[in-house]
Parts: sequence; C-alpha cells; structure tokens
Amino acid sequence: DFETALREVKPAFGAVTETLETYRANGIIPYGERFDHLQSTCRTLVEQVSKSSQTTLLTALLEGPPGTGKTALAATVGLGSQFPFVKVISADNMVGFSETAKSSHIAKVFDDAYRSPLSIIVLDDIERLLEFVAIGPRFSNTVLQTLLVLLKKVPPQQRRLLVIGTTSAASVMQDMGVSSAFNFVLHVPRLREPEIKSVLAAMKTFQPHEMEMAVASLLDSEVPIKRILLLVDMARQSVPEGYAIPIARWTQVIRDIDSS
Amino acid sequence: DFETALREVKPAFGAVTETLETYRANGIIPYGERFDHLQSTCRTLVEQVSKSSQTTLLTALLEGPPGTGKTALAATVGLGSQFPFVKVISADNMVGFSETAKSSHIAKVFDDAYRSPLSIIVLDDIERLLEFVAIGPRFSNTVLQTLLVLLKKVPPQQRRLLVIGTTSAASVMQDMGVSSAFNFVLHVPRLREPEIKSVLAAMKTFQPHEMEMAVASLLDSEVPIKRILLLVDMARQSVPEGYAIPIARWTQVIRDIDSS
Amino acid sequence: DFETALREVKPAFGAVTETLETYRANGIIPYGERFDHLQSTCRTLVEQVSKSSQTTLLTALLEGPPGTGKTALAATVGLGSQFPFVKVISADNMVGFSETAKSSHIAKVFDDAYRSPLSIIVLDDIERLLEFVAIGPRFSNTVLQTLLVLLKKVPPQQRRLLVIGTTSAASVMQDMGVSSAFNFVLHVPRLREPEIKSVLAAMKTFQPHEMEMAVASLLDSEVPIKRILLLVDMARQSVPEGYAIPIARWTQVIRDIDSS
Amino acid sequence: DFETALREVKPAFGAVTETLETYRANGIIPYGERFDHLQSTCRTLVEQVSKSSQTTLLTALLEGPPGTGKTALAATVGLGSQFPFVKVISADNMVGFSETAKSSHIAKVFDDAYRSPLSIIVLDDIERLLEFVAIGPRFSNTVLQTLLVLLKKVPPQQRRLLVIGTTSAASVMQDMGVSSAFNFVLHVPRLREPEIKSVLAAMKTFQPHEMEMAVASLLDSEVPIKRILLLVDMARQSVPEGYAIPIARWTQVIRDIDSS
Amino acid sequence: DFETALREVKPAFGAVTETLETYRANGIIPYGERFDHLQSTCRTLVEQVSKSSQTTLLTALLEGPPGTGKTALAATVGLGSQFPFVKVISADNMVGFSETAKSSHIAKVFDDAYRSPLSIIVLDDIERLLEFVAIGPRFSNTVLQTLLVLLKKVPPQQRRLLVIGTTSAASVMQDMGVSSAFNFVLHVPRLREPEIKSVLAAMKTFQPHEMEMAVASLLDSEVPIKRILLLVDMARQSVPEGYAIPIARWTQVIRDIDSS
Amino acid sequence: DFETALREVKPAFGAVTETLETYRANGIIPYGERFDHLQSTCRTLVEQVSKSSQTTLLTALLEGPPGTGKTALAATVGLGSQFPFVKVISADNMVGFSETAKSSHIAKVFDDAYRSPLSIIVLDDIERLLEFVAIGPRFSNTVLQTLLVLLKKVPPQQRRLLVIGTTSAASVMQDMGVSSAFNFVLHVPRLREPEIKSVLAAMKTFQPHEMEMAVASLLDSEVPIKRILLLVDMARQSVPEGYAIPIARWTQVIRDIDSS
Ligand SMILES: Nc1ncnc2c1ncn2[C@@H]1O[C@H](COP(=O)(O)OP(=O)(O)OP(=O)(O)O)[C@@H](O)[C@H]1O
Ligand SMILES: Nc1ncnc2c1ncn2[C@@H]1O[C@H](COP(=O)(O)OP(=O)(O)OP(=O)(O)O)[C@@H](O)[C@H]1O
Ligand SMILES: Nc1ncnc2c1ncn2[C@@H]1O[C@H](COP(=O)(O)OP(=O)(O)OP(=O)(O)O)[C@@H](O)[C@H]1O
Ligand SMILES: Nc1ncnc2c1ncn2[C@@H]1O[C@H](COP(=O)(O)OP(=O)(O)OP(=O)(O)O)[C@@H](O)[C@H]1O
Ligand SMILES: Nc1ncnc2c1ncn2[C@@H]1O[C@H](COP(=O)(O)OP(=O)(O)OP(=O)(O)O)[C@@H](O)[C@H]1O
Ligand SMILES: Nc1ncnc2c1ncn2[C@@H]1O[C@H](COP(=O)(O)OP(=O)(O)OP(=O)(O)O)[C@@H](O)[C@H]1O
Ligand SMILES: [Mg+2]
Ligand SMILES: [Mg+2]
Ligand SMILES: [Mg+2]
Ligand SMILES: [Mg+2]
Ligand SMILES: [Mg+2]
Ligand SMILES: [Mg+2]
Repeated sequence: DFETALREVKPAFGAVTETLETYRANGIIPYGERFDHLQSTCRTLVEQVSKSSQTTLLTALLEGPPGTGKTALAATVGLGSQFPFVKVISADNMVGFSETAKSSHIAKVFDDAYRSPLSIIVLDDIERLLEFVAIGPRFSNTVLQTLLVLLKKVPPQQRRLLVIGTTSAASVMQDMGVSSAFNFVLHVPRLREPEIKSVLAAMKTFQPHEMEMAVASLLDSEVPIKRILLLVDMARQSVPEGYAIPIARWTQVIRDIDSS
Repeated sequence: DFETALREVKPAFGAVTETLETYRANGIIPYGERFDHLQSTCRTLVEQVSKSSQTTLLTALLEGPPGTGKTALAATVGLGSQFPFVKVISADNMVGFSETAKSSHIAKVFDDAYRSPLSIIVLDDIERLLEFVAIGPRFSNTVLQTLLVLLKKVPPQQRRLLVIGTTSAASVMQDMGVSSAFNFVLHVPRLREPEIKSVLAAMKTFQPHEMEMAVASLLDSEVPIKRILLLVDMARQSVPEGYAIPIARWTQVIRDIDSS
Repeated sequence: DFETALREVKPAFGAVTETLETYRANGIIPYGERFDHLQSTCRTLVEQVSKSSQTTLLTALLEGPPGTGKTALAATVGLGSQFPFVKVISADNMVGFSETAKSSHIAKVFDDAYRSPLSIIVLDDIERLLEFVAIGPRFSNTVLQTLLVLLKKVPPQQRRLLVIGTTSAASVMQDMGVSSAFNFVLHVPRLREPEIKSVLAAMKTFQPHEMEMAVASLLDSEVPIKRILLLVDMARQSVPEGYAIPIARWTQVIRDIDSS
Repeated sequence: DFETALREVKPAFGAVTETLETYRANGIIPYGERFDHLQSTCRTLVEQVSKSSQTTLLTALLEGPPGTGKTALAATVGLGSQFPFVKVISADNMVGFSETAKSSHIAKVFDDAYRSPLSIIVLDDIERLLEFVAIGPRFSNTVLQTLLVLLKKVPPQQRRLLVIGTTSAASVMQDMGVSSAFNFVLHVPRLREPEIKSVLAAMKTFQPHEMEMAVASLLDSEVPIKRILLLVDMARQSVPEGYAIPIARWTQVIRDIDSS
Repeated sequence: DFETALREVKPAFGAVTETLETYRANGIIPYGERFDHLQSTCRTLVEQVSKSSQTTLLTALLEGPPGTGKTALAATVGLGSQFPFVKVISADNMVGFSETAKSSHIAKVFDDAYRSPLSIIVLDDIERLLEFVAIGPRFSNTVLQTLLVLLKKVPPQQRRLLVIGTTSAASVMQDMGVSSAFNFVLHVPRLREPEIKSVLAAMKTFQPHEMEMAVASLLDSEVPIKRILLLVDMARQSVPEGYAIPIARWTQVIRDIDSS
Repeated sequence: DFETALREVKPAFGAVTETLETYRANGIIPYGERFDHLQSTCRTLVEQVSKSSQTTLLTALLEGPPGTGKTALAATVGLGSQFPFVKVISADNMVGFSETAKSSHIAKVFDDAYRSPLSIIVLDDIERLLEFVAIGPRFSNTVLQTLLVLLKKVPPQQRRLLVIGTTSAASVMQDMGVSSAFNFVLHVPRLREPEIKSVLAAMKTFQPHEMEMAVASLLDSEVPIKRILLLVDMARQSVPEGYAIPIARWTQVIRDIDSS
C-alpha cells in the first residue's frame, strides 16, 4: 500500500535532489511577475495531481526560446513538490544510445514512476530526446511514438504522475502532435527591459546610475536569462570582486562577442 | 461446436470486462441526442453481426477530434455486447515493440477472435498503432498492411466478428485507404453549447444561474468532453466537496491554463 | 507426359475448389449484359490458353472500384475452367510475411503451376500483395519486380498458364508498369440503376411497386455490388424472414450509416 | 592460347543455342527494310569485334517500345555470330535474388566471357535487371553501378566481347547514364502499315482482298510485332486450321479485348 | 584533487603539442588588425573559462570560407592556453569509422577532458565530422546529436572546458542548430588587399615596386590565406632561393592554374 | 630514410607501369596546343610536389566530357613522373565491393602512398567510385567522405603526394564539394576541327584531298578523341591494310551508327 510504496522509492530521494540542483546551476532569480505566474501555475498542477479524485495523470509542456530557463523551472517544480519520485529524462545521459535503447530507457523511468504513489517526470529538451534536426527533417520516430503513448497512458490505480516537458521547438512539437498530447502548454519568455533590470539589480552588476545605459547597450530588446548571466560573467572577468562593472567594459564584451 | 467454443473463450471474460472499464475512467454522461444516436447505431451493428445469415464480418470506424470520447464509446459498445470475446488493441500494450512484433500481436488477437463464435475487436487510436507522425509523414507500413488485410478477411465458418476502430486523424486514414477498408465511418463530435450544459448540469458543477456565464467563459464554442471534465476537475480543486464552483475560480483556471 | 502430369497435381483439386468458393461468398447474381460480356471474354481467354499452338501464357487484369466483384469473377473463371491447377495468391495468407517471403511464396505458386499442363493463377488485390499505400507512396519493390518478371516468363514446354489479376488501383498499376505487363486489361464496373434493380429483384428485397423508390433512395447513382448486398442485409435485420423490406426501414439504414 | 581457350568454353555451346532459341519463340518474320537494316548493322558490329586490331570491346543498346522484338533480335545476333560464348543475362533467372546476388551473377557472366576469345553477352530488359519502377523512382543502384563499370571494362588481352543490351525505357536509360555507357544505341520500332501487312501476309492470316480492311481495323497506326502475333493467334482460335480468319472474327477480337 | 588530476593527464602533453603544430604547418603570419582581434577574443575566452566562478563551459565556433586559417587559429589558441588537456577531434583520424564509432570516439574525448581540470577540445571541420554533403543533403544525425548534447553538457564539478569548433559551412551549421548550440560564433575572413600585401611582404616574395602589380594580378579581390601561400610556393618553384619572384612568372602561374 | 624508403616501394614499380599503359590503350596523339598546355601544367605539378619545401600535398582534378582522354592523360602523367609509387584507384577493381570495402580499399592505397617518399594516386572516374547516379541522385556518402578527408590530409613528414582525379560530371563534383577539395581543376576538352584533322592526319586515315570532307561529315562540331578513334576503326574494317578509308565508307558508318 501507500506506506510501503513510499518507503520503496525513498532511498533514491537524496541523490535525485542533488541531480535536480545541477539543472539550475546559477540559481533562480525571480525576475518579475511573469516568472511568478509561471511558478504558481506549476504549483497548481502539482497540487491537483496529488489531490484530485479524478485526475491521476497531468502533463504540461514548457516551451520557449533557448536559454529562457525552462529546464531550471522544471527542476524547481520538482524540488518544491516533495514527491517521493522526481526524475529528469535528458539526452545527456543517453549519448550513444540507439533509438531503441533510448525508448526503453524512457519507458523504464515511467515504469519506475508507476511504482511510486506520487511522481514527477521531467522530459528535458524533447527535441534532443527525439534527435530532431530541421534538415530533412529527421528524428527518431521510435522515441516519438514512445513519448506519445506514455504521455497518454493512465497510471495504475493509486498512482499519480505529473509529466513536465521542456522544448525550444514549439512549432515542431505542434507538427509532431507532441504539443496536443500534453494537457497544457506554458510559454517561458525571453526577458524584457524591466525584467533584465531586475536581474542585473539582483546581481549588483552595475552602479545604479549606469543601469539604464547598460540595458540600452544590449543588441536585442528581449534576451534569454541564460545569455544575460553569461555576458555579466564575461564582463566581470577583469573586474575586482565586489566592484561594479564599468560600462565601457560591458559594451566591449557585447561588441566583441555578442555581435558576431 | 458453438457451446464448446463459447466455453473455450469464456474464462477470459471477467478480466476483459475489467480492462474495458478502464477505457472510460470517468464514466459515461449521455450529453444529448447526438450521443444517443451514435450509441444506437453501434448497437444495430452488434445485432447485425450476431444475427445476419450473410454478414459475418462488420467493421466501423469512429473518427473525431482528440478527447471526444471515441475510445470510451467503443469500450461501452464492447461492454454492452455480451459477446464472449471483446478485446482492445492499443499502443499502450506495445511500447517498445518492433513493427513486426506489433503486426504479429495484432494478427494474434484476430486469430484468437476467430476461435470465438462472436467477437468484438477495438483497434484503438489507429494512428498510434501505425506509429504515424505528420512530419514526413512516417508510419509503419507493416502494421498498416496487416490492418488492411485483416479488416477484409472474412472469419472462418460459424465465426462472427465486429471490428471498431477509433482515430483522431480522419484525413490520414482516408489517404492510407484505412477509411475505405471499413464498412462504415461514424463521426464523434466535440460538444456544442447545449451539450456542454448537459454535462455541467449532470456533474452539478455550477449554481444554475451561473451556468450560462460558465459556458460563455470557455474559449472555444465546441469543446471535447474530456477537456470539459479536466477543467471542471481543476477548478474544483480549491472548492470544498459538495459546493458549486464559483465563477471566478472557473474563469481563472481557463485564463491561466487553457489560454496558453 | 501429360497424363502423369495431370495425375500429379490432381489431388489438390477438391480442396482448391472449396477455397475458390469462399471468394464468392454471396453467390453470383448475373446483373445484366455488362456482366455477361465480362464472363464470356474471360471464357475466351481460358479457351485460347488451353488450345492455341502459339500462346502458352495469357495474362489479364480485372480492374474496377472496390466491391465491384473482381475477386468473385476471377474465382468464377477458375471454377469454370476445369483446369487441374487453379490457385489464388492473396495477401490473406501472407500476413506477417517479409517482402522476400512474399516474393518466394509467389514464385513457388508459379513453379507449382509450371508442373501442371493447364493452370490458372489469380493474383488477388495486387496493390495489397505489393503492400501499396498512397502516402509516400510506398510498396514492396521486391514483390513488384517478382510479379513483373513472372507475368512475362513463358512456361516450360507443354505447360500453359492463364494469370488473372485483380486491382482497385488502376492508375497505380499503370504507373508501376503492371498494367502493361498484362496482355489485357478488363474493367469491372459499379452497377447502374437498371443493374441495381436486377440485383434487388433477384433477391426479392422490395415489393415491386416500391422498387423505383428504393433505388432512388441510394446516395450514389452507381453502387458496387458488394455494397448493395450489405445494405440489403442490414435492412433485412428487423424484417421477418420471407417479408419484403419496408421502404422506411431501407431509407433509415442508408441515412444512419451510409451517409456518414 | 586461342585454341585451348576455344575448346575450354565450347562444351557450353550446344546448350546455349537451345536457350537462345526460346527468346524468339514465334520465329523471325523479316517484315521489311527497317528490320533488314537493323540486322545488318548488328552483323557489322559482330564482324568489327571479331577482327579489329584496336577495338576489343563493343557495346550496343537496342531500345524500343514493349513487344517490338528487341530480345528476339538480340538472340538472333547471338545465334548468327558463331561465337563460342553467347549468354543472355535476364531477370527471369534471378527471381528472388538480392541486389548483391544479381550483381555478382552478372559479374560472373562477364568473367566467364573474359575466358573465351570471342563472346557475346545480352543484357536483356535492363530496366528489369535494375528492378526499376517509375514510382519513386526506385532501382538497384548496386546492379546499375555493376553494369556501368562492366560496360566500360576492357577485356583482358586476346579477349573480345560484344555486349547487346535491350530496353523499353530509353529515357530512363539516358537519365541513369546507361545509354551513354554504350558505344551505340539502335532504335527498334513498332510496325507501320506496310510492315504489318508483310507480317500478316507471311502468316497467311487473311484473304488477300480483306487485308486492307484487317489493317484498318487495328486501333493504333503503329503496332508492336508481338501484339500482332497475339491478336492473330486469338482470332485464329475459332477458325479451322488452314482457313483464313474472317474479318468479322478479327474485328470482334479487337473490340472485345484490345480496346479495354 | 587538482594536483593529482593535473599529473594524471600531463604525460599526454608533449605529444599533443606536437600534433597541434601540424595543424598550422606554414606558421602564423599576423596579417593585420582583423587577425589580432580574433586572437585576442579567443584569449579572453581562455581566460574566462579558466577563472570564472560561474562559467565552467564555454563554446565558440570559428566560421569562414575554406583556407582562411580557422584550423590554424584554433590550434594556436590551444598551444597558447597552457591547459593540461588540449585535443583536436578531426575526421582525419576517423576514416572508415561507422557513425556510431565516430560518435563514441567523440564522446570519449569529452570524457577524457572531464578528467582534466582545464581542457580545450577543437572540433575541426564540423561538416566533415558530420559527413555532410549538400546533395540530399546527407549527414550523420548520430554524430550531430552527439555534438549537440556534448556542446551543452556542463562538465562535472571542478572541471572546466573550452570547445572551439571550425566550419566552412556557416549556413548549414545554422540550419542544423549547431551554431546556436555554441555560445559564440566568430567570423574568420578572406584577406583583403592590404592584408594580402602584409603576407607577401612578410614572405619577401616580390620586389617592393612590383608588389602593387602582384596583388592586382590576383583573380579575386579577397583571397584565403592558404591560397596565397600555395600560389607563392608554386611561383617560387623556378626561382633560385633568396630571389624575388619575377612578376611574369607570378601571372603565368595564376593564368595556368588558378583560372581553370 | 629516403634511400631505404625508395627501395621499399620499388619492387612494385614494374608491375604498376604495365597497368598504367592499359589506361591509354590506343596511345597518345598530341593533337595540338591545348593538349600540350594540359600536359605541361601537369608536369609543373609533378615538379612542385617533388621539390617544394612547403607543399607536400598537391591535388588536381581533370574534368571533361566522356572520352576526351582524361584517364589516358592521368596515366601519362604517372608514367612520366618517375615516382616510385604510382597507383590508379578505379571502380574496375572494386566490382561488387560494399561501400565500406571501397572506402577502406581507397584508404589503404593512400596509406601505402604515405610509405613512399614520392607518390601519385589517380582517382579515376570519381563519379563511378562514388556509385553516382543522377536519378535521386544517389551515391555512396561513405566513399565521398573518405575522399574529401583524404584529399586534404597532409602526408606524414618526408612524404610527398600528388593526387589526380578524373571526372565527366563537373557540376556534380561542384555540388558535392569535391571540386573545391582539390587544389586545382583542369578542363579536358572535346576536339575542334583543326584538332580532329591532326588526329586523322597522324593516323593516315584519309587521302589528303578528302580530309576536309571527312571532317565535315561528322555530326557534331566537337568530338571526343575516343569517339574519333572508334569511328575510324569501324570504317577501316572493310578496308585493306595500308589503304586510306574511302569517304563513302566513312559517311556510311556515321549514318548507320553514330546517328542513332
Ligand atoms: N528565474 C529564473 N528562471 C530560470 N532560470 C533562471 C532564473 N534565474 C536564474 N536562472 C538561471 O538561468 C539558467 C537558465 O538556463 P536553462 O538551462 O534552465 O534554460 P533553458 O531554457 O532550459 O535552456 P535550453 O533552451 O538551452 O534548454 C540556469 O542556469 C538558471 O540557474
Ligand atoms: N458520453 C460520453 N462519451 C464518451 N466519453 C465520455 C462520455 N461521458 C463522459 N465521458 C468520459 O470522457 C472521456 C473521453 O475520453 P476518451 O479517451 O474516450 O476520448 P478519445 O476521443 O478516445 O480521446 P483520444 O482522441 O485522446 O483518444 C472518458 O474519460 C470518458 O469516461
Ligand atoms: N455478378 C456478380 N459479380 C461479382 N460478384 C457478385 C456478383 N453477384 C454477387 N456477387 C457477390 O458480390 C461480392 C463481390 O465482392 P468481391 O470481393 O468479389 O469484390 P471485389 O471487387 O473483389 O472487392 P475488393 O475491391 O474489396 O477486392 C461477392 O460476395 C460476390 O459473391
Ligand atoms: N522480325 C522480327 N523481329 C523480332 N521479333 C520477331 C520478328 N518476327 C517475329 N518475331 C517474334 O516477335 C516476338 C517479339 O518479342 P520480343 O520478346 O523479342 O519483344 P521485346 O521487344 O523484347 O519485348 P519486351 O519489350 O516485352 O521485352 C518474338 O516472339 C519473336 O519470335
Ligand atoms: N594568420 C594566419 N592565420 C591562419 N593561418 C595562417 C596564418 N598565417 C599563415 N597561416 C597558414 O595558413 C594555413 C591556413 O590553413 P588552415 O587549414 O588553417 O585553414 P582552414 O580555414 O582551416 O581551411 P579549411 O577550410 O580547408 O579547413 C595554414 O597552413 C597556416 O599555417
Ligand atoms: N592526346 C590524347 N589524349 C588522351 N587520349 C588519347 C590521346 N590520343 C589518343 N588517345 C587515346 O584516346 C583514348 C581516350 O580515352 P580515355 O579513356 O582516356 O578517355 P576518358 O576521358 O577517360 O573517358 P571516360 O570519360 O569514358 O572515362 C585512349 O584510348 C587513349 O589511348
Ligand atoms: Mg533546457
Ligand atoms: Mg482514444
Ligand atoms: Mg477483391
Ligand atoms: Mg524483351
Ligand atoms: Mg580547417
Ligand atoms: Mg576515364
């Protein structure tokens, strides 16, 4: 029953948490309302799957441009869920696997989840799991069909499962029928000016009076959070710890490297 | 002869019923005339196949948008038939199978059916059985050819078979020659306003005077029954049991999640 | 020599006849002149192949829409030929075969035929033998090439062979060079109004004064014979044996099922 | 040396002749100038390859519509050559072979030819050797590449080889680079009115005064010789031996069968 | 820890340096500002990866026309880095490898890098690693997916990695998602007139007053550095060592060979 | 060192020469300036590769219509080089090889070349090595990638290599990136009128006053040298040795065979 089941999967708990943390290596900076709303929606899903008498399977797809923090968000949901089974399925751990091996690895994780009363599975970077490439296009139909089936397979009695997918290829997912196989699709955006300022402020990157200029120096009006963090880190290189980045250094980094 | 044959397949009966029930997990809500007509047409087919002196094989395809209740309807027909052999062929049970393994599993189920005097086979989600994906498009021609042949193969003497297929990809089925391999094609629709009200009323979701507004809040004018049930379930989450869903909660759920 | 050869293949005769009969399960209703002409042309071919001093291989393709009775006609020719070797090559008996296995099964039947002084081979539903599907399109080139070669291979001395093919995909056969590999192509048509009446009259389906109306109720002006027989059988279900079908019942069956 | 080599391949001679004869089952009817010219050109090639001090490999492609007598002509050239090694490479003898098996069979025949001082190889129906089909198009590139190489490979010292190909797919051969791999391409035509008359006269088919009408009854103005012979044979069926075919019988055969 | 790790990989150091040198066989001629800027940007990346507290993986793609010195530049960065692990992954060393063997070789090099505290991996000529050809187009998706995953895989704790890719097929890399998998893309240009003069001057190829004419003789206004070096070498062939190349000899080489 | 290396590969010398001769079976007729220029350019390359201190790998592609003498020219360069290692890689010797076997055979020849101080490798008829066919198009990417890598791989220290490719498919080579993988591309032309006369004169084919007319009889204004030699040989067949070809005989050969 429930108790035994819980105990059965618990040993893996510690290790899993550790791994989840690596998926948000640079921490989470709550950059504004749009982020808060995303997080609260995810929390609602966690609650529903753990409590509803009808719904025992919920599936949500996080889609957005590269580097917008989809994986970090999914990991955060997993960490906050307190579910006994939380697992990320990522291409990282399947380098060199054949299509069949990938499919059976994925099916295995779902099977493991069905043994825990409450589970979260993160399907990270689905286009990568599918070995997708736009030229052709090519992808593993074996893996795709496995996902399409598993995304709809109701867990056995007394088992509840939340699946969170992440993707940077929303339109491909649409064409493949992956999007419509999920119950919900949530958009994770690039940051706009005020949100960028929040991040830079939180990181104490610039002197307050230079903030305006720093944001204006960026080449695009919307920037993925990962890119902001990388640029800041590069600019900081020649700056002594604790000091703000001089605006000249910042614009040089952008010109040298981001413009290419 | 008949008696012996009946006995031969009977042991499987109980177990099969149990499985069939899982395909209509949230019960059947008779939402109006269109549903009644669908059900009665299906019942006619069951009768003909069991009694006609000429027709010993009948095949019907249920096609309609995702979540409109095709599988639940097919399962209901199977349960109501009282036939000694009723079996669902679903991709669920074939995750990781090769094309050939799928084909031979399918052929095996037909062979088993040929041993029972009266049988129903449900080919659930045919596009999934075929591993269909619109990009390419790709699919298993091995499985397709197996279906095309079996859909036309007359059962041996004294054996009668009803095949019910379900699909959300009507035009693909047309192009592949699957639709025309079935004797009949029946359309399972999304629910219109009055039908949605029937469902919400049957579930006692809203206070009567708020019903009009609740339906108006939906984003599409036609909604699959599965989607309605899911939204209701989400909205109910924060509502104490037995209480109606406040209209504000309902619109919030729709805005947060269904609009993405 | 001839006598020994005849004896050699004869044992298979009885069994073969039995099988041939199953390909015209609902009997043959001579629906009019067009059918008579088709049958007499086929009989001419049978005669030529059995008597000509020059022609020892004749090949004819029966093409027409689904359900127009091509297979039944081919089986009828086989049954009427009195040839010691008559065999139907059908996808039915090759479910799950690999392309190579199909090819070699087909080649085997031709080899067997070459051992009989007089043979008929029916290549039933050639598009199915070829595992053809319009999407792609895809088909087994291995099987196709086998057919193209065998259709032109002159039997050994003293052996005579008539090959009858059937297909619902005339234009595909053209594109693949199958049609032009046959000596002749014969068209098997859908039935027109007077022919439909012949069939309904022969089956005593309606009261004479309702016949006109019954035909007018059909949705298409030309209908395959197999479809007519199916609709009649459905309509008859609720009618006591020996009675005519009331016109109301007939139109209901058509509306409920044939219009979908 | 030459003598020994000659003796080495001679035993195969008798058998080979026998086979060659089967490729012109209905004999050769010299239907007019165009045929004579074709034959004399071929004879020139035979002479050149057997005598020239420079040219030890000659290759010619006979192309023309189906049934125009390409294979029969090639066989006739082989029979008239008196070469110790004459071999037909035909798809007939390779039913069920894999691409590789076909290629190596072909290479084997060339190897055998290289052992004879004077050889002719007939590559019959090259599109069939290549398993060509227009849909796709598909064909065996393995076999194609083998042919392209062998068609240009100069025989070893003291060995001479004439290769004659036949094909009904001239434009395909062009696209594949097969035509340009041959030294020469010769066109084998359908017969025109006077040529058709020659054939019918030679066969004593009609009474002289009916000849004009007989030719006029044909549906096409140009007809392959094989088709003429088949139609005559069919028409003759009901006519007592030695008698001319009545014109009515002739037109009936054409209407019944050739018009379909 | 760090020390042990360093020692662990050090033995390979000497050998590696030797190999790196072969990738810039004709030395490095600093042809002007654009080259200096490229080099200094690369040095910044080396520094950041070795010092940043946040960034432990940096990836940069050098793209430019054939022969512009991309590989030589990457090798130079490696040689100047003083990192204990510097390795070039090149198709050269994988001739005849299967796709899978290539993938696993690549993965192996990354694994080795993860064992060194500081590493540089050069992915040389990525289109060649991918077996790319524009007709089709065709490429190894297995290798591509391996690269896409490894380019994003964060090294284990305490490990730092700089990946430098080179390619002449910028737009292909874009289409395949390779460019966007790199953090930065740097353009390596063909040389313009003043830069060509720098190179010719550095090599003491022409007499100063003939320099202008020498450059004017070139067929294109922008020339890859490798091409310049090759033309000079050809022209020098008939010139005694230490002497300048006569302009007539120079223009002859260009006309004879470069114009074809 | 050099001496030992030389001795090591020398034994193969005699045999190789013999083979090279077979690639120019009908000798070399220096038909004019364009041929002389081609030959002298090739000789320059031979010299550069054997003497330059910088260039140890040179690659040149001879491209031109079929039969223009590309292979004969490459063989002539090899024979004139006096290099200890000269080898032709030709599809002739790889009939029936798998793609992998071809690739590894090619790689093997390059490996052998790397063991000789001075080598020439002729890649004959590259489209045939690649199993290229325009329909599709199809080709062996395995072989292509092997060539693309080997064409750029610098030989080991103290080793020098000249690679000469031949092809009749210049535009295909362009599309595949083969042309640009070679250092130089040289065009081998069809012969124009004065060049044709040179050849006919050198062969003493016609009486001087008939030469003009003989050339005028040709169907094309530019003719490959191989074709000229073949036509002459055919025309000579019926002419006693030592006599000139009568112009009538010449025009007949052209009409009979070259016009088809
Ligand atoms: N509010 C935030 N939301 C998400 N990530 C954040 C946030 N604040 C900081 N981060 C950091 O930003 C980075 C986001 O990268 P992440 O890999 O999650 O993006 P991604 O959208 O999954 O990228 P990709 O498309 O490459 O998979 C992480 O390092 C994370 O620690
Ligand atoms: N009248 C009804 N008809 C069908 N299903 C109903 C009805 N009333 C309630 N339901 C419930 O609605 C759900 C319909 O889902 P079902 O899986 O059958 O739809 P589907 O059309 O097969 O979806 P999919 O396209 O995803 O296969 C089931 O949970 C079923 O219990
Ligand atoms: N005159 C007739 N000609 C042919 N079939 C007839 C005739 N009269 C009655 N029938 C019945 O009609 C049915 C024709 O079906 P049949 O399978 O032969 O059609 P088909 O054209 O082969 O169909 P498909 O395209 O599906 O292969 C058979 O059951 C046969 O017994
Ligand atoms: N003058 C002739 N030339 C060729 N065939 C002739 C001639 N006279 C009679 N025939 C007969 O005509 C038939 C020609 O058939 P053949 O198979 O050679 O034609 P084909 O062009 O090879 O046909 P396919 O395109 O089907 O391969 C043979 O039976 C041959 O005996
Ligand atoms: N400033 C320079 N930058 C780069 N290479 C230089 C420079 N000066 C001289 N070289 C020489 O120029 C050659 C550049 O060739 P390299 O193979 O690096 O070019 P590439 O762009 O990688 O070519 P490919 O596109 O074929 O891979 C090398 O031999 C190198 O030694
Ligand atoms: N000047 C010449 N240059 C080249 N070949 C010549 C010359 N003079 C005579 N020949 C002869 O012409 C023939 C040229 O044929 P070769 O096979 O070399 O042409 P190719 O261009 O390689 O043809 P393909 O495109 O079929 O490979 C050879 O037999 C050669 O001996
Ligand atoms: Mg991610
Ligand atoms: Mg369903
Ligand atoms: Mg049929
Ligand atoms: Mg033929
Ligand atoms: Mg390079
Ligand atoms: Mg050549």
